[in-house]
Amino acid sequence: MYRSHTCGELRPSHIDQKVCLAGWVHKTRDKGFVVWVDLRDRYGITQLVFDEERSDVSLLEKARELGREFVVQVEGKVIERASKNDKLPTGEIEILVEKLKVLNKSLLPPFTIEDTTDGGDDLRMKYRYLDIRRNPVKEKLIFRSKVTMEVRNYLSSQGFIEVETPYLIKSTPEGARDFVVPSRMNEGQFYALPQSPQTFKQLLMVGGLDKYFQIVKCFRDEDLRADRQPEFTQIDCEMAFVEQEDILATFEGLTRHLLKTIRGQDIGSFPRLTFDEAMRRYGSDKPDIRFGMEFGELNEVAQHKDFNVFNQSELVVGIAVPGAASYTRKEIDALTDWVRRPQIGAKGMVYVKCLEDGSYKSSVDKFYSQEDLQKWAKITNAQPGDLICVLSGDINLTRTQLSALRMELAERLGLRKTDEFAPLWVLDFPLLEKDEETGRYHAMHHPFTSPKPGHLELLDENPEAVRANAYDLVLNGNEIGGGSIRIHDQKTQAIMFRHLGFSEEEAASQFGFLLNAFQYGAPPHGGIAFGLDRLVAILGGQETIRDFIAFPKNNSGRDVMIDAPSPLDKEQLKELHIRLDLSS
Amino acid sequence: MYRSHTCGELRPSHIDQKVCLAGWVHKTRDKGFVVWVDLRDRYGITQLVFDEERSDVSLLEKARELGREFVVQVEGKVIERASKNDKLPTGEIEILVEKLKVLNKSLLPPFTIEDTTDGGDDLRMKYRYLDIRRNPVKEKLIFRSKVTMEVRNYLSSQGFIEVETPYLIKSTPEGARDFVVPSRMNEGQFYALPQSPQTFKQLLMVGGLDKYFQIVKCFRDEDLRADRQPEFTQIDCEMAFVEQEDILATFEGLTRHLLKTIRGQDIGSFPRLTFDEAMRRYGSDKPDIRFGMEFGELNEVAQHKDFNVFNQSELVVGIAVPGAASYTRKEIDALTDWVRRPQIGAKGMVYVKCLEDGSYKSSVDKFYSQEDLQKWAKITNAQPGDLICVLSGDINLTRTQLSALRMELAERLGLRKTDEFAPLWVLDFPLLEKDEETGRYHAMHHPFTSPKPGHLELLDENPEAVRANAYDLVLNGNEIGGGSIRIHDQKTQAIMFRHLGFSEEEAASQFGFLLNAFQYGAPPHGGIAFGLDRLVAILGGQETIRDFIAFPKNNSGRDVMIDAPSPLDKEQLKELHIRLDLSS
Repeated sequence: MYRSHTCGELRPSHIDQKVCLAGWVHKTRDKGFVVWVDLRDRYGITQLVFDEERSDVSLLEKARELGREFVVQVEGKVIERASKNDKLPTGEIEILVEKLKVLNKSLLPPFTIEDTTDGGDDLRMKYRYLDIRRNPVKEKLIFRSKVTMEVRNYLSSQGFIEVETPYLIKSTPEGARDFVVPSRMNEGQFYALPQSPQTFKQLLMVGGLDKYFQIVKCFRDEDLRADRQPEFTQIDCEMAFVEQEDILATFEGLTRHLLKTIRGQDIGSFPRLTFDEAMRRYGSDKPDIRFGMEFGELNEVAQHKDFNVFNQSELVVGIAVPGAASYTRKEIDALTDWVRRPQIGAKGMVYVKCLEDGSYKSSVDKFYSQEDLQKWAKITNAQPGDLICVLSGDINLTRTQLSALRMELAERLGLRKTDEFAPLWVLDFPLLEKDEETGRYHAMHHPFTSPKPGHLELLDENPEAVRANAYDLVLNGNEIGGGSIRIHDQKTQAIMFRHLGFSEEEAASQFGFLLNAFQYGAPPHGGIAFGLDRLVAILGGQETIRDFIAFPKNNSGRDVMIDAPSPLDKEQLKELHIRLDLSS
Repeated sequence: MYRSHTCGELRPSHIDQKVCLAGWVHKTRDKGFVVWVDLRDRYGITQLVFDEERSDVSLLEKARELGREFVVQVEGKVIERASKNDKLPTGEIEILVEKLKVLNKSLLPPFTIEDTTDGGDDLRMKYRYLDIRRNPVKEKLIFRSKVTMEVRNYLSSQGFIEVETPYLIKSTPEGARDFVVPSRMNEGQFYALPQSPQTFKQLLMVGGLDKYFQIVKCFRDEDLRADRQPEFTQIDCEMAFVEQEDILATFEGLTRHLLKTIRGQDIGSFPRLTFDEAMRRYGSDKPDIRFGMEFGELNEVAQHKDFNVFNQSELVVGIAVPGAASYTRKEIDALTDWVRRPQIGAKGMVYVKCLEDGSYKSSVDKFYSQEDLQKWAKITNAQPGDLICVLSGDINLTRTQLSALRMELAERLGLRKTDEFAPLWVLDFPLLEKDEETGRYHAMHHPFTSPKPGHLELLDENPEAVRANAYDLVLNGNEIGGGSIRIHDQKTQAIMFRHLGFSEEEAASQFGFLLNAFQYGAPPHGGIAFGLDRLVAILGGQETIRDFIAFPKNNSGRDVMIDAPSPLDKEQLKELHIRLDLSS
């Protein structure tokens, strides 16, 4: 062992002990007669001291030559520090160095290894191994490890078995694009990397392992939006002989355990909203309920007056922004511009200032009386001092736009507190969603989700009305988990495949093994999967996942550190029975 | 929840309670006036009873219609069993059923779901979801989950951080063949699936995370020998600021923890052998030391007599087989035939029977006196009643042959006890091994392994003499883990690459990121990786890994259950910028 202690553990109780430390030169300060070195490792920073009075001259010389990020080993005595640093846990002591050994030199790093670095994203990613030395990144990786350990502890304590499912599986065109792997031994054939272990976990239920989990990498070859990764990690779970209520209870338990052990927060029963209710009250199926600003639907009180914009709208809906009645004309114009940006796409915004004296001032005073506006205030629950923002138009579009505005304003008003956690269940999702381009219906969750009792019959006449035994767990405005009670009989599964546009042959060739398995005594079952990257980020008080991943890829799916993907040589391609087919 | 209790938990203390159970119909026995049903779930079997006296007629009828593997839910009362079954934990009670609901029917399974099944391997693999219902398979999967949880508990308690490294990485021609993944977004380029996270874990050390582990899938596109899988699981570990002794201590601790918690065995300090010693004493770098039969080298006492076969041999070496002096001529001939099979390849075998009266009888009595043979007995540690088997020829070949014979005889003599565990370390492996076909040297472990101090200089003149800071953990004749102290400076790494036949350009293009990283303060580091599949199998008292894997592939790398790999459609290939290149 190169050390007797870490750089994070020495305290006044160690004074006078001989110790051996190893780590990186974080910083040196040379005052001529004395040289201080901050020595850093995973556990902290300890100050080393070399001085003319107490140290050998050659040692002092050697200390002067140390550069940033040199790896050194020192032996010395723990002494009390003259000027203590109460910001460091080791700030009361320092090491009077007696021996110094350079284990490895370092070039000057391309960015500073400090909490706040001067390195841009690209540089940090290229030298990720240096970036990981920085506290903010290192701590996120340690945090992630802690969260996954707690997940495993909890699920194991509940009798769940972790089972590894295969990575080299079969490609199915349903859903997102697969990453595929040419098979050398099976000419002209390909494996696919799993988008999730969905069918395997269902087969484990058929196999009688009634409580399964796995923390597992999944793969989706999608065009990467910001903060999406082609490979991501899922906490994948499934249970047999359960109803929806059992799954909600189990995974509410898991989430509560994490909030308690990781963040020290006791959270009571999670609220529940149906999908329809969530859309009506928040315009979103993953509402952030850490703050109010619930939607107030104003059709009844705002239509049938002389304001044609509203009269022609399917929905008129507003939110009361707390304390924003004081916004200037300019600020309100900026808000209006914000909702009209193409990313949001609203045509305009109507506002009502609820003044402290109980009167109202709005952009539509021409059309509405004080009594009218008072009704608006009542419906949106606006208090004196609030600003009501109203959007109108097509129901779904308008809700989405107002939800975006609600989130933006909450952010600006500091209502999205990172140390506050507000989980909820969203239930009764639609079974199908329409692809607006093709007019075809897709499974909103996946083709194995069961419809609510009695809803199967609606599939033909009113597919959009069919609700599923599907649920999402939402935390602070993010979907952190989603699942469903599955279909477990072959007949229903066949009907579902037909409705999703699979011919019998397609269903058999892609999912024949599952349909087969259902013939041999499949138990009722259901499950859930959590996005681990996002869950960890949110528990860590952040919304971007990248720094919770040790070696993330960029938006083109590249690892810029190792420079992958990269070309293969011809021999390798030939063995795999493939050729390049490049666009000219 | 479909049940109040599992099928494994009811005991006499539950008598008179109303319970609800769900599971599979394991077996029914219809005695006319009474029907018994064995109901099975993950936790056990509980007997259900329906009879003419106490049950509704229609209920009895319904029970009669139950087929094997039907999924049912029952409600009833726990009653005392008339004829108790002490082989079942639930054997003192049964359930007098009041309600019976068939949750799902089942076709007759293609093989019986019993501990000893009539299903052949192919059939079991095709219907793996049914195979998993069988106790021997189910218990192995649960056992695996328990082992991995204990691995995590131990390593976490030692301050190790689990970090996930990427699956979509870069192909490197060194080592085994990579599985590759065409990139849609980076035309003409490919990812590779990791053969191990080797370089990433080293980068984590450069990044300062000084204790890393990960239980992770690895991939090798090799022609599959029996009991090899294209995807396999590794317990991957790395530490910084450590010497070999620290790593041995840490992972000896892990192994001891597993033997204690999983098998209840206290094992003391593990013996250590150098590679050279292991080869000399056991003819193998993974000796099974649960039993003796150590090699005795006989050159000195057997050469320079009139027996030319020995005189012309590089090595004459024997083992004493306990109690085998009584073997008949026919049995000994069979042994000789066994070592002459092409898989072993010995030219012949000399034997010496050590008779109970202290005399010797051998196949070479013509050439050797009783005094000569007594010396052989002394060197091989043969006791009266033992049989000395002697092989001769080229050193390496002969050792390998005698090692195979030693293992075979131990198997036949019942010396390879599955409930006995004898771990050991094998140290000081050669750094390089020669490819006999190409004459080129390969890294025996991998190109990042450091030579022993002072050995770097030998690389040019005597590459085969160079020893590495490399070690294997061997358990019961299987290598369960292997690792090394790594090179951590760029200069040595560059020398190694050169000796392995990499041009500077090749080294830079494939491992430039690592060579680069070594310039920025890489700490001394080393690690180890355990093959989880094999470790779990051996801890479970078995040597084949297949049933410890939920969904294994066959020897052609196929998953016969889901029928993968499989062809892709043209559109999918086109998007990936590849075409098939089939041999005509």
